[in-house]
Amino acid sequence: MMLTLADCGELELIARLRPYCHRELIGDDAAVLSLPPAEQLVVSTDVLVEGVHFSLGMTGTPVTMTPLDVGWRSLAANLSDLAAMGALPLGLTVGLAAPRNCPVATIEGIYQGMAACAQAYGTSIIGGDTCRSSVLSLSITVLGSAPPERIIYRDRAQAGDVIVVTGVHGASRAGLECLLYPQWASTVPEQLRQAWIQAHQRPQPRLDLVQWLRHRVPPPRLAGMDSSDGLAAAVLQLCQASGVGAVLWAEKIPMVGYGDRLQALNWALYGGEDFELVLCLTPELAQDLCRAAGDHAAIVGEIIPEKRVQLKLNGELLAVQPDQLFQHF
Amino acid sequence: MMLTLADCGELELIARLRPYCHRELIGDDAAVLSLPPAEQLVVSTDVLVEGVHFSLGMTGTPVTMTPLDVGWRSLAANLSDLAAMGALPLGLTVGLAAPRNCPVATIEGIYQGMAACAQAYGTSIIGGDTCRSSVLSLSITVLGSAPPERIIYRDRAQAGDVIVVTGVHGASRAGLECLLYPQWASTVPEQLRQAWIQAHQRPQPRLDLVQWLRHRVPPPRLAGMDSSDGLAAAVLQLCQASGVGAVLWAEKIPMVGYGDRLQALNWALYGGEDFELVLCLTPELAQDLCRAAGDHAAIVGEIIPEKRVQLKLNGELLAVQPDQLFQHF
Repeated sequence: MMLTLADCGELELIARLRPYCHRELIGDDAAVLSLPPAEQLVVSTDVLVEGVHFSLGMTGTPVTMTPLDVGWRSLAANLSDLAAMGALPLGLTVGLAAPRNCPVATIEGIYQGMAACAQAYGTSIIGGDTCRSSVLSLSITVLGSAPPERIIYRDRAQAGDVIVVTGVHGASRAGLECLLYPQWASTVPEQLRQAWIQAHQRPQPRLDLVQWLRHRVPPPRLAGMDSSDGLAAAVLQLCQASGVGAVLWAEKIPMVGYGDRLQALNWALYGGEDFELVLCLTPELAQDLCRAAGDHAAIVGEIIPEKRVQLKLNGELLAVQPDQLFQHF
Repeated sequence: MMLTLADCGELELIARLRPYCHRELIGDDAAVLSLPPAEQLVVSTDVLVEGVHFSLGMTGTPVTMTPLDVGWRSLAANLSDLAAMGALPLGLTVGLAAPRNCPVATIEGIYQGMAACAQAYGTSIIGGDTCRSSVLSLSITVLGSAPPERIIYRDRAQAGDVIVVTGVHGASRAGLECLLYPQWASTVPEQLRQAWIQAHQRPQPRLDLVQWLRHRVPPPRLAGMDSSDGLAAAVLQLCQASGVGAVLWAEKIPMVGYGDRLQALNWALYGGEDFELVLCLTPELAQDLCRAAGDHAAIVGEIIPEKRVQLKLNGELLAVQPDQLFQHF
């Protein structure tokens, strides 16, 4: 018999989850943290629901991840919000709601995944709450900090800036396609397939870039956000917040290098969940950054004064909409 | 036709909730806050699920609150955790999951209640997330701060301390009884009934006491927590964390002054959700505090070196257990 939450009870569940949490910060009404001197607090909350944001097969949606992946990915998405703000993590809290018939092993797997991701990025679970519900959901609040002059906002893009993206856009979506359509996946070279699935199940928030930017003296002017809703949405939101426009150069966007090019472009622009960074900055800083990041960053467009976002594809300029795929034409 | 979340969509919902949030802190990947210099961050997360922690009639449980009450009470419970730590609030994030058929007015009511409670205690909603789910749930993370020497932990109680409680214990439970059993409620004097219902629907976190304690020079040694799980659970947990015991004096505990005395005592000890403070401190400081608080604080027992928690009732000493009601005998 599989042990469920109903068998286990809240006190035993908490005892089982404790090893995944920071040892000294659990046990009072609240957790206490210190901020590095002269830094500001940066806070982000995400809610993730089984059957909507991830699937463990409880609600009939196809399973594409283990509980461990769900934990890792949920936290990685949140840490990506910190990276997008130029902040480094201090800790996180987890609000867990789960059905009584949920296996305890599922919950332990999710916490194990969160703890592994937290540890990989030098942070830990410092508190939270558990309760019963008819659906499994996670609410993660990440706490981070940054010196005020290092915080990255969306509204600082200026005409003349270039747009830099990290990583390969569309890889997470390609990984999901592999998991949903194994027959198609079997046509993809093994190494590519594994990289895409890894991008989908174990995304890496770009805190490495935050570390790199911290060493720039004086702190450069930047605008930025992450590409959790797709590259197109990120550029549109940056332009809207900053009152500018942009041209994206299709052939410069690092995307999945297999299969239909237009499909790969659509995944890059609209696939989402890549958790990469999209930054607007001076061409000089952009070149430095790309040199430092090796293959992991590329200049993919420019900021223009006219308030429209366009894609340059095969010499033509096409309007970029929040959710309109580019069709074969 | 009542407007539901399905009619409204996420973007319109967020636009409707924006007036209840801090105007300048919403719109980036994360919110940015400053801590008062040399203070530590204090963080607490609570998850609240419809049909478990509150009822709006969606899952067949009896309705005892409006959406506004649910919002107020949910946040008050969280702010009480800050008060229990000696911290004052900086801001909060809200993770909301709700069914597609949920009326938009219900969600707006909950946010209105949270915003009203936040404002009453000098704080505001600074971020969060909304998503669909099959059940309505709220995950609230409150952020507060305190100078390190002012933080109240559970493990600092010492033999010789007295136990001070704020407010009337059992009032929230008495209010719930009034709402569940209107016939019985009609026998209770109007003013009492209103006070109890208020205690249940609109509890007041004891941040006033935190303010008072902040002015003590030098910072006194204290142990404390809130009584959200009942007075008995609070004293048991304080004693366990501090490696001491306690004697509670039944006749000194401020409880509801109507009906059966033993029932009132049981509500005080085990009713829970009073969100009052339970503090262990020197008799001198306790007397000062009770003088300053007027009717709102009382000395109700003492800390002893022997690791047992007892209730002195009619001259007899009875063992206090986490959830064992005292029977007529």
